Amino acid sequence: MQSQVITLAQRPSGLLQTADFTAGTMELPELGAGQVLVASRYLSIDPYQRGLLDEVPFVGQPVPIGGVVAGRGIGEVLESRTEAFKPGDLVAGELGWRSHSVHATYAVQPVVRGMHPVTWQLGVLGTPGSTAWLALRRIAEPKSGEVVVVSSAAGTVGAAAGQIAKAMGCKVIGIAGGPRKGDLICTALGFDAAIDHRPAERLPLAVGEKCPGGVDIYFDNVGGRMLDIVLQAMKPQGRIVVCGYLSGYEPGQPYPGLANAKLISFHRLKVQGFSVRDHVADHAAAAQALHALADAGKLRQIDTLCDGLASAPGALVGLLRGSMVGKVIVACR
Amino acid sequence: MQSQVITLAQRPSGLLQTADFTAGTMELPELGAGQVLVASRYLSIDPYQRGLLDEVPFVGQPVPIGGVVAGRGIGEVLESRTEAFKPGDLVAGELGWRSHSVHATYAVQPVVRGMHPVTWQLGVLGTPGSTAWLALRRIAEPKSGEVVVVSSAAGTVGAAAGQIAKAMGCKVIGIAGGPRKGDLICTALGFDAAIDHRPAERLPLAVGEKCPGGVDIYFDNVGGRMLDIVLQAMKPQGRIVVCGYLSGYEPGQPYPGLANAKLISFHRLKVQGFSVRDHVADHAAAAQALHALADAGKLRQIDTLCDGLASAPGALVGLLRGSMVGKVIVACR
Repeated sequence: MQSQVITLAQRPSGLLQTADFTAGTMELPELGAGQVLVASRYLSIDPYQRGLLDEVPFVGQPVPIGGVVAGRGIGEVLESRTEAFKPGDLVAGELGWRSHSVHATYAVQPVVRGMHPVTWQLGVLGTPGSTAWLALRRIAEPKSGEVVVVSSAAGTVGAAAGQIAKAMGCKVIGIAGGPRKGDLICTALGFDAAIDHRPAERLPLAVGEKCPGGVDIYFDNVGGRMLDIVLQAMKPQGRIVVCGYLSGYEPGQPYPGLANAKLISFHRLKVQGFSVRDHVADHAAAAQALHALADAGKLRQIDTLCDGLASAPGALVGLLRGSMVGKVIVACR
Repeated sequence: MQSQVITLAQRPSGLLQTADFTAGTMELPELGAGQVLVASRYLSIDPYQRGLLDEVPFVGQPVPIGGVVAGRGIGEVLESRTEAFKPGDLVAGELGWRSHSVHATYAVQPVVRGMHPVTWQLGVLGTPGSTAWLALRRIAEPKSGEVVVVSSAAGTVGAAAGQIAKAMGCKVIGIAGGPRKGDLICTALGFDAAIDHRPAERLPLAVGEKCPGGVDIYFDNVGGRMLDIVLQAMKPQGRIVVCGYLSGYEPGQPYPGLANAKLISFHRLKVQGFSVRDHVADHAAAAQALHALADAGKLRQIDTLCDGLASAPGALVGLLRGSMVGKVIVACR
């Protein structure tokens, strides 16, 4: 059987381009005992995938040139040679940018259809949600009444982090690009306020206006200049979760460096990087907490659906450029 | 009664100069009920004192222009109007740069003469020792076999941190300026190796040579360029204690910023500032642990004694320029 695939045509040089990818087909292996044939339905587009395209990723294994781009997704079982799954079941796993794929039973997880859209299991109820929940609990330890600033607040992890902090009783301010994203996180996700990070020169003033008493927790997905600016607004003993570093995923004009690093000493700040991959044993507890929040109406997801496998390269490029909102998903038929 | 004093003549502009201070005399108040008259014996010279000379210190209250320079010390009780102390007793407290001073009973602590020199109570057995011990325990959490790098390793806090980490079973490498300090920390304090931070261009290579497998813990007292260089050598999930920021205490040519900050994200590092002032409740436990280490011969102090109150300004300037070794103390008669 043939699968439609998107492969890496060349290592990106400079900013990622859709021309760095090629669409094609690939012959699938015969279905073996204990395996399932899966048709992709929803492919998750996430910032970390940019790293996988480099020769030396900052996380995970590199995608070889000519290889299928790696990524998580939800698919439907078409054929099964295992008792664990039957045709029509939904499963989640490392599907990659493929229309169809063959997996061992242990390599996919059942997706239970519940009261929330299944796409949430790629976002607020999945790995990005666990990332936000565990990073807050393990590093930031928010207390009710504290002021929390979240960058890339309209992105999947940022939106989850803001809603979780809000549910913990914090005042939550989101940084996002442009008024549309800012409106959305306030009206749809319950953020207390939004800050537009453009123009960059105005950002220090805007942070000061929205957080006049300073910032207790900065949940950062961006790094670079934005991190340097929020550093200046941190209260003594504040905590900064460096959950992502969007500003550093692509070459270009790197920010020269954190000029305000001495405030880490003077204000006894904690600045800590986080990857959910270091906390596999805690995923189940995180998922349980996230479901409870979602069931209580305190955690929701804004989906941006892109149409068809061929849209995947453009979706990732758009995500990295800041032109996408919420959870970016490629819907396959 | 008259006291010899050193006061702040002017706010330092640029690097600290001995001309920023003036020697003089001051009339002491009559000894009241519950008070003691103390003759200074040993005055502690510490980097944080530089901050107290600024209009807005990074820690503590500013010394006013014309005011006595603040600082800890050990003195001998000359007269007592309290049952708590009798003439001849040694006490420790905020004596300031004065030959004599009057204190309420509650403002000074008894100094018990034990098996170690009393000067150690201003260093490894006092606040600097507690700083090192608590910062290691609360932030770095060293495990046996881990590689620990300490900057300003011949300084009071650095020397204590290295010895404590060594006692915890770590491999300890100290960064210090010049071969004499390097020899001293290895031969007298048991460090496994020393790195000369001069010339700065060679430092990255030297760190790589001494720590070929990377660094688990960086106990930093310097910040700036040195922090940026060691950041590059950190292992995943490494911990950096920013216990001081010597490179940022004085104006001058500030280091442009931490260019390697994105490694905090990529390697999931913890970078945390520490001040012992946030941990007052833990001082007693720390002191007990430090005494046990010293009694076991695992913690010692190298004293650099400067002669007479008039030497205090030069001692502080020398400390900031890196020309002093170990615990810098002004001995008064």
